[in-house]
Amino acid sequence: MSATPYKQLEQEWQRLHAFRGALALLRWDAAVMMPRGSADVRGEQLATLETEIHALLTTPKVSRLLDRAQASEGTLTDWECANLRQMRRQRDHAIATPASLVSSLARATSMAEVRWAEARQSNQFRIFAPHLEEVLHLVRDKAALLGQALGLSPYDALADEFTPGLRVVEIDTLFGAVSRRLPSLIREGIARQADSLPIPVAGRFSASKQKLLIAEIMKAMGFPFDRGRLDESEHPFTEGVAGDIRITTRIDSADPFTGLLAAMHEMGHALYDLGVPKEWATQPVARERGMAMEESQSLLVEMIVCRSRGFVTYLRPLLEKHFGVTGPEWEVDNLYRLLTRVRRSAVRVDADELTYPLHIMLRYDLEKQLLSGQLAIRDLPEAWNAGMEARLELRPGTDTEGCLQDIHWAHGFFGYFPSYSIGGAIAAQLFESLRGEVPDIDEQIARGEFAGLAGWLREHVHGLGAKLPLQALLKQATGKPLAAAPLLRYLEARYLEGAR
Amino acid sequence: MSATPYKQLEQEWQRLHAFRGALALLRWDAAVMMPRGSADVRGEQLATLETEIHALLTTPKVSRLLDRAQASEGTLTDWECANLRQMRRQRDHAIATPASLVSSLARATSMAEVRWAEARQSNQFRIFAPHLEEVLHLVRDKAALLGQALGLSPYDALADEFTPGLRVVEIDTLFGAVSRRLPSLIREGIARQADSLPIPVAGRFSASKQKLLIAEIMKAMGFPFDRGRLDESEHPFTEGVAGDIRITTRIDSADPFTGLLAAMHEMGHALYDLGVPKEWATQPVARERGMAMEESQSLLVEMIVCRSRGFVTYLRPLLEKHFGVTGPEWEVDNLYRLLTRVRRSAVRVDADELTYPLHIMLRYDLEKQLLSGQLAIRDLPEAWNAGMEARLELRPGTDTEGCLQDIHWAHGFFGYFPSYSIGGAIAAQLFESLRGEVPDIDEQIARGEFAGLAGWLREHVHGLGAKLPLQALLKQATGKPLAAAPLLRYLEARYLEGAR
Repeated sequence: MSATPYKQLEQEWQRLHAFRGALALLRWDAAVMMPRGSADVRGEQLATLETEIHALLTTPKVSRLLDRAQASEGTLTDWECANLRQMRRQRDHAIATPASLVSSLARATSMAEVRWAEARQSNQFRIFAPHLEEVLHLVRDKAALLGQALGLSPYDALADEFTPGLRVVEIDTLFGAVSRRLPSLIREGIARQADSLPIPVAGRFSASKQKLLIAEIMKAMGFPFDRGRLDESEHPFTEGVAGDIRITTRIDSADPFTGLLAAMHEMGHALYDLGVPKEWATQPVARERGMAMEESQSLLVEMIVCRSRGFVTYLRPLLEKHFGVTGPEWEVDNLYRLLTRVRRSAVRVDADELTYPLHIMLRYDLEKQLLSGQLAIRDLPEAWNAGMEARLELRPGTDTEGCLQDIHWAHGFFGYFPSYSIGGAIAAQLFESLRGEVPDIDEQIARGEFAGLAGWLREHVHGLGAKLPLQALLKQATGKPLAAAPLLRYLEARYLEGAR
Repeated sequence: MSATPYKQLEQEWQRLHAFRGALALLRWDAAVMMPRGSADVRGEQLATLETEIHALLTTPKVSRLLDRAQASEGTLTDWECANLRQMRRQRDHAIATPASLVSSLARATSMAEVRWAEARQSNQFRIFAPHLEEVLHLVRDKAALLGQALGLSPYDALADEFTPGLRVVEIDTLFGAVSRRLPSLIREGIARQADSLPIPVAGRFSASKQKLLIAEIMKAMGFPFDRGRLDESEHPFTEGVAGDIRITTRIDSADPFTGLLAAMHEMGHALYDLGVPKEWATQPVARERGMAMEESQSLLVEMIVCRSRGFVTYLRPLLEKHFGVTGPEWEVDNLYRLLTRVRRSAVRVDADELTYPLHIMLRYDLEKQLLSGQLAIRDLPEAWNAGMEARLELRPGTDTEGCLQDIHWAHGFFGYFPSYSIGGAIAAQLFESLRGEVPDIDEQIARGEFAGLAGWLREHVHGLGAKLPLQALLKQATGKPLAAAPLLRYLEARYLEGAR
């Protein structure tokens, strides 16, 4: 007897999974290892693989199998049904975007990423501008086509690709609630902290020692170094597939915290990848539940956990062990004040939790304007700087610290940024429930025990993969739909009451 | 007007080229970067891509286009005809080996390579044995199928895949001529050197300094570091495609020459990759003219050039610059004696030119016996050791220095080894002609000028890609067919007369 249509689909997706794994490695290498001059060659390789994936998704055979599997849905398990839904979704998205567009985008973004890095290094936006122009042009085509096929506005269509179901109207509601409270919260928080400013730390912290410290913490959190790596790259990221997960961070030898916290951010992503159901590893239902949920995990680990009093208690002796540092500036209270210091700054990845959403809202506004054509690429640096001034009362000193700071647009990732702050709200909501169910979570973390944290997340989030829609997953995990209130409660507790 | 059948084929092979480039990167990463535990994941990725390449080569569409292009061959240029021949050859080989076998081999060799490395590290052949067994089993199937399709014996069929046109009868003739002279030549050479043994060098030579020295020499030879890398791996290799070429070497911090000469060996391969005609870069005609020619280039650079008096004259001040070394052991005469020292040793990659062919002949005999079933895997270690004793009058101390020393069989590369010594003969024959046409080649090299060397090779070998059959290429470059005489003349001149 031959395999059922559904089982045949699983085999097709197993191939797709291998292609995606190869693509992930090609991208990791491009950011970490590849010689700069080889971007053109890599671009061709990425484009060819992307095109192949696209071709596999859009074959008549796959559509036929999807229809036949759908017809006998009654015989499938919950997980199989959810897997089938993910397959259909991928096929629908693929059919809506022609192969020529997919390969042009792969080629254009591959070049744009290299030029972005060069532009950043030499602080010359004009090196990047023509490449961003080309990427934007292609993304605009994609948004129009996807939007038409899915019955969505262009921006919604792009956002939906990253976080299924996320719409501008939801984003605006949540961002509205947050931005009504945030400016006063930032002012109050800064004023409160002014009474007891932290002593700054100083010294040289070699990259090799920092990586040893980070690796020790990653191990404590359960990162399997026999199936993963930690490296350095211009822009930290997590890449790979379950079974070979690669984290990068950016090390600053004058500061032991930048690299650590960037790695912890990525560790949040890695825990997600590690926690998806193993028996579904090659199938789409085992992937993360959209980018907002993905970012919630990195923010939960980096911001909520790794800047807590508990974590700092665990970290203090490790800093002494790896860097030999002692003194009042290395005591728990001071370290906590350092890691929760609120300061308006130009760079998103260095921003604290309170000001972070303002960075996101700026990008969200600008990318909508770029997409609609309201804002021209050449005017981006100035629009960026003006937006920073309006929101954060400062102007970046250079474009490198301004509109060149993020790789996302070079990558073609328009519609991604909101997922960060939606993710921040999800993180706070999840952690509020986690704390309710694991009351000694802070003490566990202070002892360097992360099984309680990882276990709760695995049970309520990671282990479910993409089985449930985002809102249903959140409701099941926390009992409530997505809202801004838990985030605001959390921020007020930490920054106005100094709790945790 | 739509593209001609031939032009459509070029497009198909452009895709294949991108897939091959992705495969090359996946393999490079597996040897240099990948965490050990991820071999299973990588194995799936490699198998999927290999299968895809196989599927592309065997589509009815490609066969139809090949027939139609063949029919209008009269309208094609020389290069296009040669390209078409290479395409047909690839298609014929692919059709002869079923997809299931290709993917099983990819999976099996991917695991076998990891186990080989583990077995080598712990000197436990039994860790590797079952994986080698499986690889051998699959290679045997492949040899039978290929042989049947091409009308060749199983071994000839495998050898033909690496070096098109190479047959056991040719190998036996050349090996016969060489092995008649070699034993006495080795004895005489060793006796002659006994009169003035080199002073050994001692010290610690850090990996980072060694890599700087190697990189400086690679640059002088024309290696483009903006489009290539130098790294370390267990077994040195060259991987990648024109536009992103990656060399690895194995550094020994007690000896500054092992890593350098291994890198120079790979540099010979890299010069070939760099010299193929750029306008054909994505097409099969731009690939190297078989593995014997490929190995001739690495041996020419490592053995003939980089152990010459001229090269040592160039090297001496570089050693002083990078390692701060001076003294009689670092003088040109002594270095030359060190680098041309003849010693019977257990390890092929450390062997001198005189004893090297004996290492190859051992492997050639053993792999023929393994393939035919005359020799069982479990008896391999003993057969290896006995063969070493018979040929080189020594027994390896461990299997790591015995039958575990080479990755080739783990890789599934049976039928490859003869190409090394055929390559050695080709190298000597080419260099004899080169010296005739560039009489001051030694002085150029002594000045660190490699343009004369690279230019001659590019004109007579590299730039022709796979345009001509091996024998025709050699005839055109040297005026003579392949023979053992130039090799023996060269070895006698260096080891009995002490010239160059």
